[in-house]
Amino acid sequence: MLPVLTDLDHFRSLLSQAPGVDPEAIAASEQRNSQLTKPPGALARLEDLAIWYGGWRQTGRPAIENPQVVIFAGNHGVTKQGVSAFPPEVTAQMVMNFEHGGAAINQLAALAGARLDVQALKLDQPTHDFTQQKALDDSDLLAALQAGWGSVDPTSDLLVVGEMGIGNTTSAAALACALFGGDAADWTGRGTGVDDAGMAIKTRVVREGVSMHQSSIKDGLDALGCLGGREIVAMVGAIAAARMLRIPVILDGFICCAAAACLAHVADGALDHCVAGHQSAENAHASLLVKLGKEPLLSLGLRLGEGSGAALAIQILKGAVVCHSGMATFAEAGVSDG
Amino acid sequence: MLPVLTDLDHFRSLLSQAPGVDPEAIAASEQRNSQLTKPPGALARLEDLAIWYGGWRQTGRPAIENPQVVIFAGNHGVTKQGVSAFPPEVTAQMVMNFEHGGAAINQLAALAGARLDVQALKLDQPTHDFTQQKALDDSDLLAALQAGWGSVDPTSDLLVVGEMGIGNTTSAAALACALFGGDAADWTGRGTGVDDAGMAIKTRVVREGVSMHQSSIKDGLDALGCLGGREIVAMVGAIAAARMLRIPVILDGFICCAAAACLAHVADGALDHCVAGHQSAENAHASLLVKLGKEPLLSLGLRLGEGSGAALAIQILKGAVVCHSGMATFAEAGVSDG
Repeated sequence: MLPVLTDLDHFRSLLSQAPGVDPEAIAASEQRNSQLTKPPGALARLEDLAIWYGGWRQTGRPAIENPQVVIFAGNHGVTKQGVSAFPPEVTAQMVMNFEHGGAAINQLAALAGARLDVQALKLDQPTHDFTQQKALDDSDLLAALQAGWGSVDPTSDLLVVGEMGIGNTTSAAALACALFGGDAADWTGRGTGVDDAGMAIKTRVVREGVSMHQSSIKDGLDALGCLGGREIVAMVGAIAAARMLRIPVILDGFICCAAAACLAHVADGALDHCVAGHQSAENAHASLLVKLGKEPLLSLGLRLGEGSGAALAIQILKGAVVCHSGMATFAEAGVSDG
Repeated sequence: MLPVLTDLDHFRSLLSQAPGVDPEAIAASEQRNSQLTKPPGALARLEDLAIWYGGWRQTGRPAIENPQVVIFAGNHGVTKQGVSAFPPEVTAQMVMNFEHGGAAINQLAALAGARLDVQALKLDQPTHDFTQQKALDDSDLLAALQAGWGSVDPTSDLLVVGEMGIGNTTSAAALACALFGGDAADWTGRGTGVDDAGMAIKTRVVREGVSMHQSSIKDGLDALGCLGGREIVAMVGAIAAARMLRIPVILDGFICCAAAACLAHVADGALDHCVAGHQSAENAHASLLVKLGKEPLLSLGLRLGEGSGAALAIQILKGAVVCHSGMATFAEAGVSDG
């Protein structure tokens, strides 16, 4: 079990001592991979994935048996400005839909054999409008971080974090802009599908928010306090908890990657246990993946959130692992190795 | 049950009467898709896939419950010229590996919940060296076509065809070059990993084979007789049988797509029931997919054959179908639709 977070510096301190990949498991996996019945390198990215996964799980012959998907939901004060094509009550309605099994993520998690947990975070208390003041004060930020931190099942062997929150592509765009620079327009996209007028408002909101808070942002936690949403903060906590527990993470789309970027701005290498699951159609996700140095496993144009792209990518990682751990070696199979 | 093929023209004739997609099922699927709890278009390619799949299966609410993977193996006379990095006995050794469950495709088929069948086609009788004479006479061609045609389980609801055959990227390159034109070098790749000297031989062999037979090639079956291999011909038969049975097909890599190209050169639209599963690292696969008008679901750099890329892509198609058929509508879930 992980300790309960006492304050934000406690989180920073724990993260600075996070475990790394196991070099012995990596070496064992590489050795095994070189002996499997296929031309060298013929499974390409699947080979790299299996070795990476085994390195985090500390074994040369890993299995994925207990994946977990956690969806966090939160509401955003900036929706008052008209940044979304959907009304804010949809956040709570979709939480009900998750709980009743009717959303895309329910189907995709079940297909992947993953446990699905849903955490609605104070939906009746939206964050403050970040163009007016900080989105979250320190105690709110810590509570959301702890919600994510405490949500990870220590017995799981793979984590996907997803989100639902009307307005949260606006928050994610502001976070990315604050962390990586550039113009608000570089990071702002259509989210659930705003029209041109909505895009103009959204871009202005991102620009104003970043401009207002930039000077007080020293790291990723500061950025989250100024511009984040509870569900985004909770994703940060969950990805960090997975790192402490040596549980690899598949990142989802733009919002998840904005959360991941905040974590990367708390400690160097904090995303080494993460792969990018899917490149979304949201405008700036491709750029954000480049900034994170992550190449997506899938690129199917999804732009739904909920962890949907990452849940689909569980299957790819499972494919990598079953090949690595299940295939015969040349010697076992009596196959000539070229 | 499908009729036994009596001759090559029988095959051509059956294919000219092949069934198409069901417009009523397409309409029902599109209607349902528009009501599901997601922003319009947010599942992108998954939405198109589910509608396409339901159209072939004649239902607006499809399921994938019984996928089949069939691997065909054959040997190639051109291997005498030194076109492969592996000796020809590896074909039979890998068939044993498939039968004992040790290959990549065994793991990936099991992961996808797919039945796996393996057909070794006269491995002790390689095709003729196509730089010297036709690879297969008409009776050999018909026998291999029938082997594939008869291999498809009529109760399956999705088909992947894979192959194993040392030397078969050479045959596939020659087929693609004969069908689509261009230089031999445009279509020749490194296969299991030949070195530069091997590539020079392989390119020359492709050029000589195409040059020798081009004038006698009027359609895809002619091309297969001149330049094919038994496993490639069998793949053509299996893809065609699936079409007659309204079973959608996921195409695999370069060799599978060369087979598919032959089928497309027997009847227009003969690949309408096929999607491309994975773009392989083999040199000319990307070009071949463009010629076929197919955008791959995955692009992970695999170059193994065996149906491995397509088997991995089963999961993507399953994801599309479970979302389409399992999600709640806005009305069912009580979610505001924007």
